[in-house]
Amino acid sequence: MKKIVIAPDSFKGSLAAIDVARAIAEGLHRVWPLAACVLVPMADGGGGTLDAVLSAGGERRKSRVAGAAGHCVTAAFGIVEREGRRLAIIEVAQVVGITEPSGMAAPVGARSSQGVGELMRQVLDLGIRDFLIGLGGSSTNDGGAGLLTGLGARLLGEDQCAIPPQPDALTRIRQVDISALDPRLATCRITILSDVNNPLTGPRGATAIFGPQKGVTPDLQDRYDRAIAGFARLAEEALGRRAADNPGAGAAGGLGFALQLIGGEFRSGAEVIADLLKLDDALAGADWLITGEGRSDMQTLLGKTPQVVARRAALQGVPATLLSGGIDRAALVALGETFAGCFSLVFGPLTLADAIADSAGLLADSAEQMARLLSATRHS
Amino acid sequence: MKKIVIAPDSFKGSLAAIDVARAIAEGLHRVWPLAACVLVPMADGGGGTLDAVLSAGGERRKSRVAGAAGHCVTAAFGIVEREGRRLAIIEVAQVVGITEPSGMAAPVGARSSQGVGELMRQVLDLGIRDFLIGLGGSSTNDGGAGLLTGLGARLLGEDQCAIPPQPDALTRIRQVDISALDPRLATCRITILSDVNNPLTGPRGATAIFGPQKGVTPDLQDRYDRAIAGFARLAEEALGRRAADNPGAGAAGGLGFALQLIGGEFRSGAEVIADLLKLDDALAGADWLITGEGRSDMQTLLGKTPQVVARRAALQGVPATLLSGGIDRAALVALGETFAGCFSLVFGPLTLADAIADSAGLLADSAEQMARLLSATRHS
Repeated sequence: MKKIVIAPDSFKGSLAAIDVARAIAEGLHRVWPLAACVLVPMADGGGGTLDAVLSAGGERRKSRVAGAAGHCVTAAFGIVEREGRRLAIIEVAQVVGITEPSGMAAPVGARSSQGVGELMRQVLDLGIRDFLIGLGGSSTNDGGAGLLTGLGARLLGEDQCAIPPQPDALTRIRQVDISALDPRLATCRITILSDVNNPLTGPRGATAIFGPQKGVTPDLQDRYDRAIAGFARLAEEALGRRAADNPGAGAAGGLGFALQLIGGEFRSGAEVIADLLKLDDALAGADWLITGEGRSDMQTLLGKTPQVVARRAALQGVPATLLSGGIDRAALVALGETFAGCFSLVFGPLTLADAIADSAGLLADSAEQMARLLSATRHS
Repeated sequence: MKKIVIAPDSFKGSLAAIDVARAIAEGLHRVWPLAACVLVPMADGGGGTLDAVLSAGGERRKSRVAGAAGHCVTAAFGIVEREGRRLAIIEVAQVVGITEPSGMAAPVGARSSQGVGELMRQVLDLGIRDFLIGLGGSSTNDGGAGLLTGLGARLLGEDQCAIPPQPDALTRIRQVDISALDPRLATCRITILSDVNNPLTGPRGATAIFGPQKGVTPDLQDRYDRAIAGFARLAEEALGRRAADNPGAGAAGGLGFALQLIGGEFRSGAEVIADLLKLDDALAGADWLITGEGRSDMQTLLGKTPQVVARRAALQGVPATLLSGGIDRAALVALGETFAGCFSLVFGPLTLADAIADSAGLLADSAEQMARLLSATRHS
């Protein structure tokens, strides 16, 4: 093995992608001290996207914007160069993350994504017009109304009274006023990263599918869904564009809708990150690729990072092996079409907590065993 | 991969060695349908030895002899041809097994290994003089006194009264009378298989080390140890030979002592079984060897089946990979000197019970993944 590309996603709840890649490289180097391991920490637009992109360079910035419950939060974002233009990397979870204690201080009916719009405006002020926005892990379910108000739009109720961009208030909405919507948006290129295909409303919509995990109780579900549908109709009219029924409109509680409404386009997170990190260049002349994720199953083959990475490897004739925290055995046959071997990092019966507690060590040891196997048998 | 030798031990409490080997072959054949998989189910003299030996041919017989508690039990033994002579394979656990409910009906102080001696006599009656005796898993702690009485010796107490070959009675022993000991033993070749090195008595002896798991309570430990030491002295005098301090005399509650006293010789179980199953012939021209066991750790490198098998593979330049139920990670560095990769059959965090419940399926899937890895990367 001369050149090995290591391009895993993060192991959710355990290790960042860069740490996964480093651990695997450590294990391989025990067997092949001189192997060139090219680390390409990957992401799919969800948590870890910012870290993965910045691992290859760029600038990490911080900004103060409104969190989901209205308190000020410090949100990180990134700036990288792409094709001679500056590109801002935003993770909505940095602003309205569901694991953010301050954001969860208010009930979901009073939470808003306005801070995401505020952050976009600060980026516009830096002269940047290209956005990469990862939608994973939001706590809001406001239909993206907050995003629009953060960018200058106004929501009006009866008697032209302004109302806040929160599900509870959206029941009273009569008009979306875009006269003050930031005009610089017209010249922006907004790429939305998400693996959610749901529409904005209805039985497969944001409120029905993702609302419960954000705190939408059954008695409020229909009320919020109708409120968001009402807001969406008005917003579509105001902007002269439709987006509520687009796949992904229901991502991040409707941020997928609002971002498409202002011109954003959905793309596969893993594909965009792979391009940004120049994965294809890394794969040129490589002998082997190792990828992985916290847990692999049939979903893996629906555009998750390991599948995207393996497909690109296949195009260059590079065999791709999967090394994940766990593999759903029911998916092994299907995974076998894509991967040259699917391995877990554990060395025997073990609890999930113990596996997570020492995942870096387990990864290094597992990668070492694969290298030993290949090293000893390759000329037989 | 053209020729692959699959030579695992049994997975204790889960799968017989032949079932382990079959499962691995099944997985490999999914990737290499035409590979010649040579199955050599192994054993080390403990449980599964009889099955492993008979998997390559020979005759399985049954016999009725006394179990540990005195009731009659049906014990299997085997007869195979070796170098033109018939060889009997006896597992003491078939007669006085610790998992045998009838044997455990009496307390350890009233248990005896006499049935093992009876079984040997029945084998002698068949005209067989070669014995292979596996010592694993016994419930007795009688110093091997029962074995001798089963073969014709008499234990005498005060006033020349016969006493039974049980720990409780041995405290009263005054003489071991070998006048009726089976004379055919003089022409026998007895090979003892055990990985226990302990002497018969003392702080590292059978009673101190293995007594507790057989039911020897702390208050009885010293009493039994002294009783066995007394019996051993008398038996050694009677037979004009010493054995109590030999390594392995403390195996199987002292059967290791009694068998050595009548001329038996200790050998590595895995080495003897490997010879019997002609492992070296199987390895000739092989491309790869897979071995394994229920759990691998530092003990594995002290003469357990996978190490013995791997060493023989190494002599013929065949890389050996370990596929076990679980691997002690603390032993990975040491195991790496011997094995071309150490793998567990699990695919992620899992309980031991779940791993055992589906070990054949897990083994097949794991072997398949190794084959996929090798298949895709071997020419890169």
